[in-house]
Amino acid sequence: MSDKPIIAITPGDPGGIGPEVVAKALATGQPHQTCRPLIVGSLELMEQGIAIARVDLKLRSVSDAKTAGDEPGYVDVLDSGALDPADIELGIAKAESGRANGAWLEEAAELATSGDVAASVMAPVNVKSLIKGKSVDKVVSTDESSRFLTLISGPLRVVHVFDHVLIEDVCKRMSTELVLGAIRKTHECLTAWGIHNPRIGVAGLNPHAHGPQEKMAIGPAIEIAQSEGLDISGPIPPDTVFRHCIEDRFDVVVAMCHDQGHIAIKTWGFVGNCALFLGAPYLFMSVGHGTAFDIAGKGVASHEMILAAILQGASLASGGGFLKE
Amino acid sequence: MSDKPIIAITPGDPGGIGPEVVAKALATGQPHQTCRPLIVGSLELMEQGIAIARVDLKLRSVSDAKTAGDEPGYVDVLDSGALDPADIELGIAKAESGRANGAWLEEAAELATSGDVAASVMAPVNVKSLIKGKSVDKVVSTDESSRFLTLISGPLRVVHVFDHVLIEDVCKRMSTELVLGAIRKTHECLTAWGIHNPRIGVAGLNPHAHGPQEKMAIGPAIEIAQSEGLDISGPIPPDTVFRHCIEDRFDVVVAMCHDQGHIAIKTWGFVGNCALFLGAPYLFMSVGHGTAFDIAGKGVASHEMILAAILQGASLASGGGFLKE
Repeated sequence: MSDKPIIAITPGDPGGIGPEVVAKALATGQPHQTCRPLIVGSLELMEQGIAIARVDLKLRSVSDAKTAGDEPGYVDVLDSGALDPADIELGIAKAESGRANGAWLEEAAELATSGDVAASVMAPVNVKSLIKGKSVDKVVSTDESSRFLTLISGPLRVVHVFDHVLIEDVCKRMSTELVLGAIRKTHECLTAWGIHNPRIGVAGLNPHAHGPQEKMAIGPAIEIAQSEGLDISGPIPPDTVFRHCIEDRFDVVVAMCHDQGHIAIKTWGFVGNCALFLGAPYLFMSVGHGTAFDIAGKGVASHEMILAAILQGASLASGGGFLKE
Repeated sequence: MSDKPIIAITPGDPGGIGPEVVAKALATGQPHQTCRPLIVGSLELMEQGIAIARVDLKLRSVSDAKTAGDEPGYVDVLDSGALDPADIELGIAKAESGRANGAWLEEAAELATSGDVAASVMAPVNVKSLIKGKSVDKVVSTDESSRFLTLISGPLRVVHVFDHVLIEDVCKRMSTELVLGAIRKTHECLTAWGIHNPRIGVAGLNPHAHGPQEKMAIGPAIEIAQSEGLDISGPIPPDTVFRHCIEDRFDVVVAMCHDQGHIAIKTWGFVGNCALFLGAPYLFMSVGHGTAFDIAGKGVASHEMILAAILQGASLASGGGFLKE
């Protein structure tokens, strides 16, 4: 058996572009070079995805995740029967779709937690389907002070201390403890992923990184982390820290709030974006786009982001560090 | 006499890269195609800049700004004698340098205000020199609620409602009046520069543009502006609005705070950045870089930013709209 890591891939909402972009990404053969891809989802849904994508890819049903192989042109599927093929309907949010994704995400989480798979990669789910199917809680999300949204866009990698939090609350709630926790978790995870002594750039919150939050919370957190021997720089002006990362002066940026990182990632315009939750119990990757119901089934959706997520997940899971472009 | 607009160019700190990059930019011949460049500064300093840049450019001393010509290879210089050539010293901040720049900026401002020149373009000044020379007040700056820092980077153009203001103060001080004032001024200036019915995208302040400032200030300002017939969209999530502008869905973005716009501009990485102050009594352009004392005199500094500022100024001053790449 190959010792490449097994990467569980959930195909996303049956009504969206997930299955077809997963099929396209796997048909490139690139994932097989560094991992053993395993679909945790419906065989019939993936057959449909392959037909829509018009790619040459054969599915094999397996009952044990650990038997997943890396033969190019083939993909193993673990189908628990959570989706009745009769319920597959393109372009529509349905309770059945949400429930099936909830089940697949739970199965992938169990496999990842037990170590049977090395990471879980989620193709786009649909929030309406998840709500209808009462499965929103099955999607990994941020958890303030312990689990941080992390976006990766080629050489630009950003960990967010605060995610969907009002700017005035970010100002009030910023603390040495929170920032230090994010820095330590970043150092710990990057080290586990194979980045030796990661260079971490910490953003300030205010223009030119001059303000009360820098003095009272961010600066002191950086000093403590430095005293622990970590390679930490900052607080760095928010408008320059991201370019420093793109230019390889840092391995990662710790950003203070949602839009610092999101403006940088989305404005820069690199296409192979993916997301993960640093500090989650297992490596959980997702993509930067949604289900795109309007173009689902047309075979025109780009597979670049899901491919980037699979390849990045395989690299991190095997301790190979971030992918180099 | 040519009817091209006359653009006054102050050469910047005598110790910095200003004179040499101005020389390089003018030697390309591009400015002469759309304007009549006029140096408002020292003849000897510009002679030195030409020598450092190793370019073929001849200077002509003029005593009346209005006689500036557009003959390629020649540049007219209005030298009031504000700088004693004996005081020119590379790589150092000096009171004499600050005082000379203060005088040149004042001369250019007078010419622009009287209409003898159409715009003023400032090569990089040095803050330490200006402080030593007690001339900081001669540089045009933002003036809350009436004059807004605007950055231009190719198709990405950003007007900032707040500039160097702490994030917590931005939250507190955001008001319908301030945002509406910035929107109206943006519409007015862009119209004057030749952009018919400009498409203005207004950023929110909070993640996904959902928060109290959007409800109480930004949203209402947008509604009033729309009721006045202006082409205004928003509040738009701060992480997507800048890319919309790059992709030509807007002519300009009105950003709420310093780092929204600055993160977008600096992370995107386009090289021909320039700045202006929307709402100033005359068109005043500057560049995105500093005096770079460490490489001044070596002839290696890039002239792309100052060239972009001169060309952009010429286009706006003559009602030609923003430069197209």
